[in-house]
Amino acid sequence: MNIPTISNLKRVVIIGAGFAGLQVAKKLRRDKFQVVLIDKNNYHTFQPLLYQVATAGLEPDSIAHSIRNVIKKTKNFFFRLANVHYINTEKQKIYTNVGDLHYDYLIISTGSVTNYFGNNNIESFSLPMKSIPEALNLRSVILQDFESSLLIKDSKERERLMTFVIVGGGPTGVELAGALAEMKKYILPHDYPDLDIQSMNIHLLQATTRLLDGMSEESAKQAYKSLKELGVTIWLNCLVKDYDGKIVFMEKDKKIESSNVIWAAGVKGAIIKGFLKEDIMGHRILVDDYLKTIRYENIFAIGDVAYMKSYPNGHPMTAQPAIQQGNYLSENFNRCSSYQKNPFIYKNLGSMATIGRNKAVCDFPYFKLKGFLAWIIWMFVHLVSLVGFRNRVIALTNWIIQYFHYNKSVRLIIRPYHRRKNHLKKS
Amino acid sequence: MNIPTISNLKRVVIIGAGFAGLQVAKKLRRDKFQVVLIDKNNYHTFQPLLYQVATAGLEPDSIAHSIRNVIKKTKNFFFRLANVHYINTEKQKIYTNVGDLHYDYLIISTGSVTNYFGNNNIESFSLPMKSIPEALNLRSVILQDFESSLLIKDSKERERLMTFVIVGGGPTGVELAGALAEMKKYILPHDYPDLDIQSMNIHLLQATTRLLDGMSEESAKQAYKSLKELGVTIWLNCLVKDYDGKIVFMEKDKKIESSNVIWAAGVKGAIIKGFLKEDIMGHRILVDDYLKTIRYENIFAIGDVAYMKSYPNGHPMTAQPAIQQGNYLSENFNRCSSYQKNPFIYKNLGSMATIGRNKAVCDFPYFKLKGFLAWIIWMFVHLVSLVGFRNRVIALTNWIIQYFHYNKSVRLIIRPYHRRKNHLKKS
Repeated sequence: MNIPTISNLKRVVIIGAGFAGLQVAKKLRRDKFQVVLIDKNNYHTFQPLLYQVATAGLEPDSIAHSIRNVIKKTKNFFFRLANVHYINTEKQKIYTNVGDLHYDYLIISTGSVTNYFGNNNIESFSLPMKSIPEALNLRSVILQDFESSLLIKDSKERERLMTFVIVGGGPTGVELAGALAEMKKYILPHDYPDLDIQSMNIHLLQATTRLLDGMSEESAKQAYKSLKELGVTIWLNCLVKDYDGKIVFMEKDKKIESSNVIWAAGVKGAIIKGFLKEDIMGHRILVDDYLKTIRYENIFAIGDVAYMKSYPNGHPMTAQPAIQQGNYLSENFNRCSSYQKNPFIYKNLGSMATIGRNKAVCDFPYFKLKGFLAWIIWMFVHLVSLVGFRNRVIALTNWIIQYFHYNKSVRLIIRPYHRRKNHLKKS
Repeated sequence: MNIPTISNLKRVVIIGAGFAGLQVAKKLRRDKFQVVLIDKNNYHTFQPLLYQVATAGLEPDSIAHSIRNVIKKTKNFFFRLANVHYINTEKQKIYTNVGDLHYDYLIISTGSVTNYFGNNNIESFSLPMKSIPEALNLRSVILQDFESSLLIKDSKERERLMTFVIVGGGPTGVELAGALAEMKKYILPHDYPDLDIQSMNIHLLQATTRLLDGMSEESAKQAYKSLKELGVTIWLNCLVKDYDGKIVFMEKDKKIESSNVIWAAGVKGAIIKGFLKEDIMGHRILVDDYLKTIRYENIFAIGDVAYMKSYPNGHPMTAQPAIQQGNYLSENFNRCSSYQKNPFIYKNLGSMATIGRNKAVCDFPYFKLKGFLAWIIWMFVHLVSLVGFRNRVIALTNWIIQYFHYNKSVRLIIRPYHRRKNHLKKS
């Protein structure tokens, strides 16, 4: 890869520009390190709001931010758009689709991918929502289904098209179910007066005994109640066994007929080839209390992909631990030693989920909130967390208009058009 | 197609929801007609601003508007998302990918498509910009080229990647050249400090003796001057003969090496199968002074696709004649006769083009403007022409931020992801 070598500066290569990787990339001192950031996209994705792109609330520009625009001070900083294929820990090299690169230190912050738990049927028939193209695809599928419903005479088939099954009752599933239910309530009846929108069904399937496993019992109950009120059918203790594109098969011979299964049931670490089996635990890379990998002195893992053994079940695979780990590691590096004496301690600042208009739940360390105030706090926290002034302004403008207009205006079915220039195909 | 027949109401089928078709659809009286609007997209595209989507200035949600959201009063109105394959004028039927439909009156407002003048090489190697997916693709290609330029060692190849050739010196070509030149000036040097951005070349090729053929000599000269100042190389009297993906071949053995040829050299009517050769002139449907087709009493054509013989060379293929024709025709229909005594008269309200920050040219019937004031007027006219309050607010917010930040923030390379559910593939 075309990056100058500077003799007196160690090169730190960061793979992945999610919350964790971006944090390190921003904070590492460039007078001490040459920083190379690699990502398969040229933008950082604010994943907590992906569901709003999928439900026609926001366009990608509100929740994505050009990486080159985030990191403006470019001295000793290099961003490269590339897919990393594997790592050679002995040669200290990474191999990508655009060439190889030597590292002195390697920080792996590749995040996570959708976990289908090995079920190929589910993988090929259900719809994921882990990236911007996936969210845009989901948006188009939802809208296209309603257009198709108008044209289909077979009532059974129409019912399947108008039935949405969300698998996974975590924050993603809950927020998506809420947003879909609000579309059903406020938007679709106006858009499709010649369809019986009441026959649209939204199912939320959760494997455990309650929604929002990571949050308080109180918040889970409130989310359950609010979703019920919005007309969502909630299935608890419900394990999905299979899906053939038409029927969701659950345990105890239960079934739902649906053309639209959205899979939000789990994620797993996005591991790159080159690690030994022993260094991996449940699809995540094992790290010590200082976020260093067990085997290699110069390789670190942070964010979703990292599994700290000393923390029960590893840290939650959310933005907060990722940002805190990114911060911690950059501070360690900036002291010019890869270690500091204090191990990484995760501070849980709380968690929150929104269900719909004026409805959210927040768990903070010392108190809990629900309803309108929780919703305002949810919006505020998400707004200030967005990267970049412009993204905040555009997202806020959208939310204000939606709030007063009861409308989600990004109802555009935009299907891929991809003309790659022939002579570039080889690259 | 699944549309109820109402015995005492004549059915008007409108094909195409561009400026012309949307105007008729909005204005036709539903107590007199059943209105069916058909489009291949579920949104109306504000084509004059497509170049801003392509140059990372706006997201599609600013310039596209959900058709179901535009036409809110849905009594006796039906929108269907469909591709029309052909028309049977005898049976009074249209045939689409989702079934056939009988019409009493047919209004063809299919607009125009890119005209490659029969050159297959140009068609397969150059990049068009006539639709939102094409504009999004162009945006990704431009940004990807710079990412690739960083990785390529061969200087010849890098130069080709960084050379942009825009063919066509009409408003589209001029505005696109201006926007690219501004990216070169304000944005790319910050994004790509390790590239020599000065080696980026922008060529604008025009077949005739001047730019902006439809506008005044004065405005053409001003546009020429402004683009020159921005560093655009302008070629007049320059006919492109061929393009092989690497080299643009022009007349008199002139050549430009470039990987990026953007084709804005012409459009032609988007004609649907079912018309006789004699009814078509230069890829447009011949209409009389009342916008009725020559042969059929119940078929009308408006907008880009219509060619009124009595008007020299037909009306310009722009938004203004389309809107005026849509208005005129809906008024005729609403009087419950397909004719009125006064023929359609096109009122040229003026034309304008923007070149960049504070730079635009406007030709009005009684005066001409250039510079800052012209630019403000250009923005105002385009803002109020956008469909929908939200689109205006979002576009204005973007423009204000860009103006003060010297930044175009939608620099996202978003590549298609298309998981169509297998069982729907047949449809």
